[in-house]
Formats: sequence, C-alpha cells, structure tokens
Amino acid sequence: MALSITIWNEGLHEKTSPAVAAHYPDGIHAVLAEALGSLEDVRIRTATLEDPDCGLPPEVLDDTDVLLWWGHMAHGRVPDETAARVDDAVLRGMGFLVLHSGHMAKPFVRLMGTSCTLTWRDDDRERLWTILPAHPIAQGIPEQFEIPMEEMYGEPFDIPEPDETVFLGWFAGGEVFRSGCVFRRGRGRVFYFQPGHETYPIYHHPHVRQILRNAVRYLAPTAPRRKEPLACPNAPAPEKRD
Amino acid sequence: MALSITIWNEGLHEKTSPAVAAHYPDGIHAVLAEALGSLEDVRIRTATLEDPDCGLPPEVLDDTDVLLWWGHMAHGRVPDETAARVDDAVLRGMGFLVLHSGHMAKPFVRLMGTSCTLTWRDDDRERLWTILPAHPIAQGIPEQFEIPMEEMYGEPFDIPEPDETVFLGWFAGGEVFRSGCVFRRGRGRVFYFQPGHETYPIYHHPHVRQILRNAVRYLAPTAPRRKEPLACPNAPAPEKRD
Amino acid sequence: MALSITIWNEGLHEKTSPAVAAHYPDGIHAVLAEALGSLEDVRIRTATLEDPDCGLPPEVLDDTDVLLWWGHMAHGRVPDETAARVDDAVLRGMGFLVLHSGHMAKPFVRLMGTSCTLTWRDDDRERLWTILPAHPIAQGIPEQFEIPMEEMYGEPFDIPEPDETVFLGWFAGGEVFRSGCVFRRGRGRVFYFQPGHETYPIYHHPHVRQILRNAVRYLAPTAPRRKEPLACPNAPAPEKRD
Amino acid sequence: MALSITIWNEGLHEKTSPAVAAHYPDGIHAVLAEALGSLEDVRIRTATLEDPDCGLPPEVLDDTDVLLWWGHMAHGRVPDETAARVDDAVLRGMGFLVLHSGHMAKPFVRLMGTSCTLTWRDDDRERLWTILPAHPIAQGIPEQFEIPMEEMYGEPFDIPEPDETVFLGWFAGGEVFRSGCVFRRGRGRVFYFQPGHETYPIYHHPHVRQILRNAVRYLAPTAPRRKEPLACPNAPAPEKRD
Repeated sequence: MALSITIWNEGLHEKTSPAVAAHYPDGIHAVLAEALGSLEDVRIRTATLEDPDCGLPPEVLDDTDVLLWWGHMAHGRVPDETAARVDDAVLRGMGFLVLHSGHMAKPFVRLMGTSCTLTWRDDDRERLWTILPAHPIAQGIPEQFEIPMEEMYGEPFDIPEPDETVFLGWFAGGEVFRSGCVFRRGRGRVFYFQPGHETYPIYHHPHVRQILRNAVRYLAPTAPRRKEPLACPNAPAPEKRD
Repeated sequence: MALSITIWNEGLHEKTSPAVAAHYPDGIHAVLAEALGSLEDVRIRTATLEDPDCGLPPEVLDDTDVLLWWGHMAHGRVPDETAARVDDAVLRGMGFLVLHSGHMAKPFVRLMGTSCTLTWRDDDRERLWTILPAHPIAQGIPEQFEIPMEEMYGEPFDIPEPDETVFLGWFAGGEVFRSGCVFRRGRGRVFYFQPGHETYPIYHHPHVRQILRNAVRYLAPTAPRRKEPLACPNAPAPEKRD
Repeated sequence: MALSITIWNEGLHEKTSPAVAAHYPDGIHAVLAEALGSLEDVRIRTATLEDPDCGLPPEVLDDTDVLLWWGHMAHGRVPDETAARVDDAVLRGMGFLVLHSGHMAKPFVRLMGTSCTLTWRDDDRERLWTILPAHPIAQGIPEQFEIPMEEMYGEPFDIPEPDETVFLGWFAGGEVFRSGCVFRRGRGRVFYFQPGHETYPIYHHPHVRQILRNAVRYLAPTAPRRKEPLACPNAPAPEKRD
Repeated sequence: MALSITIWNEGLHEKTSPAVAAHYPDGIHAVLAEALGSLEDVRIRTATLEDPDCGLPPEVLDDTDVLLWWGHMAHGRVPDETAARVDDAVLRGMGFLVLHSGHMAKPFVRLMGTSCTLTWRDDDRERLWTILPAHPIAQGIPEQFEIPMEEMYGEPFDIPEPDETVFLGWFAGGEVFRSGCVFRRGRGRVFYFQPGHETYPIYHHPHVRQILRNAVRYLAPTAPRRKEPLACPNAPAPEKRD
C-alpha cells in the first residue's frame, strides 16, 4: 500500500517576506512535496496553519504514515489539542520528521520533555558530517558536504540523549550541533533535522532532499498503528497463583 | 550546605482508607521523611495536594535539591502550572524521584513525552533484581530481594529508552518490569522507582528505604542551578568571519 | 539480490548426546536453516567447527549478509583469527545473530568488550515479554508467550547498555533477563537472543522461529559493505586555512 | 581513604623528539601528575612502557582506583596480557581515563569492541564545546574554549554509542568530533578525552587540566571492587518450584 505522507507548513513567512518567497514561491511545503515526489509508491498531502483544524483533523492523522513539520514564527498559534493529537499519533506509530525551527514546535517539545533550546545566528555556513555512515538515513550522502548559507544552530541543545545521532553540524562561525537525531517515542520514531531556513534555498539542495527521502522511508511504521487506547489495563496473571 | 529535600504526597488515600492509614497513619510523606531522616546533612520538608499552591510555590522549588513525588488517585487535580513549574526546576538542575503510581503524575509524564502506560494488578509478590550492581543507587542492596506484597506493574511500560536501568522487577504472577530507571532531562536527573503501594508497608522495607536514600544522594545536583531563562539566545560567532 | 545467510553451529553436542540428537538429529544448524527457509529470496549456508577454517573462510564471510552463531561447549576451540575475521565483517556491515550460549562465544565477547557473564540453571520455564511491541523483530509475536522448558539465564548480564532491548525474560525460578538486545557495532548490528538450549526443542517453537526470521531481516545490511581498510587516514582539511 | 591514581605513559616520544621534550621534559606523565596534584586526598603513581610489566603488575592495578593512559607510537608493544589485565580491572570497577591517541591503545579498543578508527591531521585549531553543562566532568569549564594548536581528530569515530557525550570538538579545518565520551563497562567507567598531543602544550592548558581533575573524580569507583571471578555461576532458584 502506498506510504501516506503529510507535510505540514506554518505557511506564513512565504506570504509576507519577498526573501522567503524568492526561494519558496508556493510555500516551503510545495518544495518539500517536490523533494519527496520521486519516492516510489507514496501519497503526499500538505496542510498549513490556516487550514481548518490546521489541516490535521483526526482523519488526516489516522491516514498519515509520516508527518513532516515546518514552523517558525507562529508556534504558539498551533492549538494545544492539535499538538496533543499529533503526539498521540506518534505514540501509536506515526513517523515524525521535524525540520529546523520546528525544534520549538509544540508537538516536538512535548515529545522531548525538555526545553529544546539552543543558540542561533543568521548567515553562517554549515558543513554537515555523517557520523553513522551505514545508517539508512545517510545512504547516498557523502562523508560531509557544505551548505553555503544557513542559520547557525549551536549547542547546548537541550534534548534527551538521542537514540541515534546520524549527523553533526560544523559552522564556520565556530559552533557544532547535533544536526540529525533519532528518538523512539512509543511505537513511533522522530527524526529531528537541523538544516533548513526560510530565507535560504536549503530544501533545494540535492543532499538535503536525499536525506529527507531517506528519513521518510526510515520513519515509516514497521508495525500496524496501535488502535487500543493509551491506557493502563488491569491484567490477569499469566501464571496460576496460590 | 545541607541538601534540601522536598517530599510531595497527594495525601488523600490516608485520610479515607483505613487500609492505607494502617501502614501510613501520618501519611506516606511522613514515612518517606523518616526513611530519609538518617541521611547526614539534609533538610526535609513535606508538601501535599491540599496545601496552598500544592505546597510547591516557586520559593520552595527554588530551595529544593531533590523532590520526591507520590500521587495516585488525584493526578488530575495537580494544576498544569504546578507541573510545569516542577519540570522547569528539573531542567534547571533539581533531582526528581518519582514513586510507583507517580508514573502517571503530570510532571513525570511531561518529562517523558510518552504515555507512561503499563499494566497492573493488585496483590502480587515482587522480586527486585539489581542489574547494575556497581551503580550508586544499588549500594548496600543485595543482588535480589523479595517484596512480599506489591501492586504488580507490567511491561510494556511506554517510556523513552532509560539512560540507566538499575533494577528489574519479577512478579510471581508472571510479569517483568523496568522497576528502577534513570533519565537525564536538561540539567537534572529523574529516577523512577516502581515499588511502593499505599495499601502495603513497602516504604517500611529496609532495602526500599536504602534505595530511596541512595537515590536522593545520586539525584542531588552536581552543578549550580541554572538561573538564566530557558530560551534561545542569538549568539555572536566565536570565530572571526569574512 | 538474495539475502545471504550463514548459520554457524559448533556441531558437537548433537553427535555425542542422545538428548540433543532427539531434538536436533541433523544438528541445530539444520533446524535453524529450516526455520529460516520460509523467508523469501534468501540463500542459506551452514558451517560448523570441524569444517576447514570453521567453515568461515574470508570468501564465505564476504558473501554473508547475516551470520547466525550457535556454540556452547567448545568456544575455546574457535581460533582467535576466526573470531577476529567475524568481528571485522560485522564492523564492515554484516549482521550477527548470536544465540543463547553464544553469549560466551569469542566473536560476541570481543564485540561487547565486557565479560558477558550471567547466572544459569537447567530445567526452568520461561515467559518471554515483548517490551518494544512495534520493533521489527517483534512483529507477529504476542505480548508474551511461554517456553515450557528452558535453561535459565539470569541477571546481572555483564554487557554494555544495549541500543535496543526488545524482549525481557521471566523465569519460574524467580529470575529476569534481558533476553533480546540489539547493539550497533561499526556498520553492522548484533542481536543477542537468549532462548534456545540444545536439550530442549526451543528452535522448533513457532514464535521463536518467527523472531529468528524477523531478526535476520532486521540485521540485513542497509548499506554496502565497507571495503576500505579499518584504518585512520590522514585527512586534508575541507576548509581553506591560513 | 585516599584515591589511588596511576598515570601510564608510553614514555618514548619525550626521549627522542626535542619538540616533545620542549613541552614535556620529564615526560607527559609528569605533567599529568602535576595537573592532578592539586586534587585533595589522592595518591599518584606513574608507570611507563619500559618498566617491568609495563609498570602495571596485578598489585598495582589492584591498588588503582583510576588509571590514566597515554600512548601513541608503540601501542603494539603493550603485551596482550597487560591489556587484558587492565580491562579486567575496569570490569571489576576501576576507572579508566583514555587520552587522545589512546583511542588505538589495546585496552581501550578491546573495551569498545569496535575499530576506534578516525581521521586525523596535524596542526589544527580546536574549539571544545560543552554539550552537557551540568555533567560533573564539565564543572568549572566554560561553554566553549579554544585550544590554539591541536592534532585534529575527525568523524566518523568508530565507537559504540557513548553512554554520555560531554564534549564536542570543532576544528578550524572543518571537522567535528565527539571529544569527550563516557562508557560504562562492567562495574567500571571509561572516559575518552580527545584533546592532547605530544608536540603541543595541551596538558598545560588550565581548562584541560580541570577536565582531567573532574574526570578522575567522576571515574572514581562508587562501589567496592569486584573480587569474585568474572564467571557464570550455576544459581539455585530463589523461588520454590514444583
């Protein structure tokens, strides 16, 4: 069955900033959809903040295998119930690919349980290093490559210890960052990927696009979505007892 | 300087259930305070749900090095702001020792980011195994010991991968459980400890009490409490750039 | 291309012990081969201690995607060079599925770097619990199932912290065990699976066989085998420097 | 009781290279001993390759709480039995602080179980970032600091997933590195620390010296050294059985 991908984009920057619209005239979601479009046997849907229910009503999440998330300037406008619904889907098995400034998005922060804070600076240059070269997300990616214009994100990044750290970022300004991290949460998996900024053409970069395609495949559920409630059942003893 | 310990107890069961009051006539917090009382150079304070601000106003949390948490029947009555304040203190460096049914307490669930669900059953017998015998929390504890009456908690326990799994529980009814787990969150550390139930004298057990004393020492901050806001500062480049 | 599986068996018990031969008349490797035979698109080869080069010359390892290992009474007879060659293949990307008493096999102990010791007892009953129900190795496996006759393996098991703990074992005699653990080592992955003993029909058990099939698929390389030497190259600077 | 520290140094470079002798006229071990000398209540011993038994006979290791290791050009001259004896002591509880080029030292490689390979280059500049600012090893260390002359060590570093990553290194030439990593192995802990090279005055740097002092305290055993053999005992069942 086709893999169902939903790309969520805040979708505000592109409408107000010519600098953003220059790289993403139809929105970041459109460029992400294009990047994923070469995957075989996928269905791709997009959703934005201003759609009803943020474009993420239960029936959409129930039908989503992997959700991508891009937001930056309006994290607070995502309703708590929407964030809770996304996280519930992750714990039931949905993959969740969180991009760049999504480190402060409600559903990500809630899944981490930490502040997810970091340091930042505009207009830097990044070199992305693959530290787990055999990881599925790194397939086809060179040992390192350069992203000529990037928003610097620097350590300390307040996250729990990742289950897998696939990429480390080096910045010309002097910083390092855990730029590609996998976290298992419930039955689902989360991949946080730092590169990407609305005023640079990062999501047009071929290696970045390959990483996104790899990540979608990696985050795809390997087990059926959990249907029963996330609850604490009283359980009969498997052993006969005195 | 003395280590400052705050013991939080919901404090409801003891007032309404003779079965609970039989073991904990002055409340579970009183027995926990007694268990920790033999530690050298500590100050111990208690707080309950019905105190103003749940007994946990900012000035108490600011002055707490390690917070113990016991709750069971009224998790929902803890205000969200109180849970957020506790978690903020953990991320800044406070130790957090979460007991038994506290697996569903708001501040713990929020720090984990998962559902923290499990299975349960009354009236079982547990054998607690030490799987990291050199861990500070296990000092003075035998390889295994029995808890004659216990509420069974069974896997799957929906938590992120623990940073350290110190104890595993075996139940006569046939279940296993990750009964003692450490999680680093921000600058603080969390220890979840499964044994303990309000209708059994578990917090009178000498090995359980030793584990609690060890855990308090282990969770004590090793660095000053973070004072600056949990925020994302714009950072000047340490490297001179072109 | 077909997945290439090599099943290594010490192959001694079956020749001398009628109790073992009763369950494994053609050797444990034959039963394991049968269990894996229903996988689609695989080539299965077997090798034993008494074959030349233990049946594992370089050309066999070079052509093996996943190696299964069963040994018990003659770990010391495996030459150090053979163990080193197996580990080199794992670090280059080969999957390695280590069964039961293989916890003391040279190539496993070398990959762990610890003593891999544990406690044991004959003639116990095990209940295997799935603690990561969405993990690929657990697909089709119930929440828990019983293995009526088993050799007990008990904690503490002296291994590094596993990257993933998929199964926990419960024993009627009172012990617990981390019975299914995944470790990433270099470009390869290792799965240690505790159930299985030569005097019991454990490898005829349908759930055990399903776990073996799942594990082989999970351990299959996701990247090309590393060809270049495992060495420390002098590297030119990617950045132009003063 | 005083903490017993043993500093092991290959001790060859200093005798033959004026460039090394300029920074370490009495050997790197002498400068390390000086750096640790301000710790309270410690006994410090040094040992070198050319001492009988490499200066590490059983009675020395039995009396060592934390062992520091510096070697570079003669890893192969350390006898396998000496490496095995060091590792046995670690598994029983000894702390092990491995410096710079010690990433290829026999006892370290054996404890990791991987190739421990990396890339390298002379004459670079490093900026060391603290990514776990509340970790005991990072106390008194700024968020980042510069090491003006350093041998670059670059990713991928072929090690198992560290239990704790305390520092990341940034190099002016463009590389990143996991420069400070903790691994639990048996009852002991290992800290690998990348900075340090024989032709630069790195072990005179005040922050580096503070990190070494912190690490020694962190690695100090928290439990008595294991005396019983590292073996697999047959164990009586704690539960009465049918």
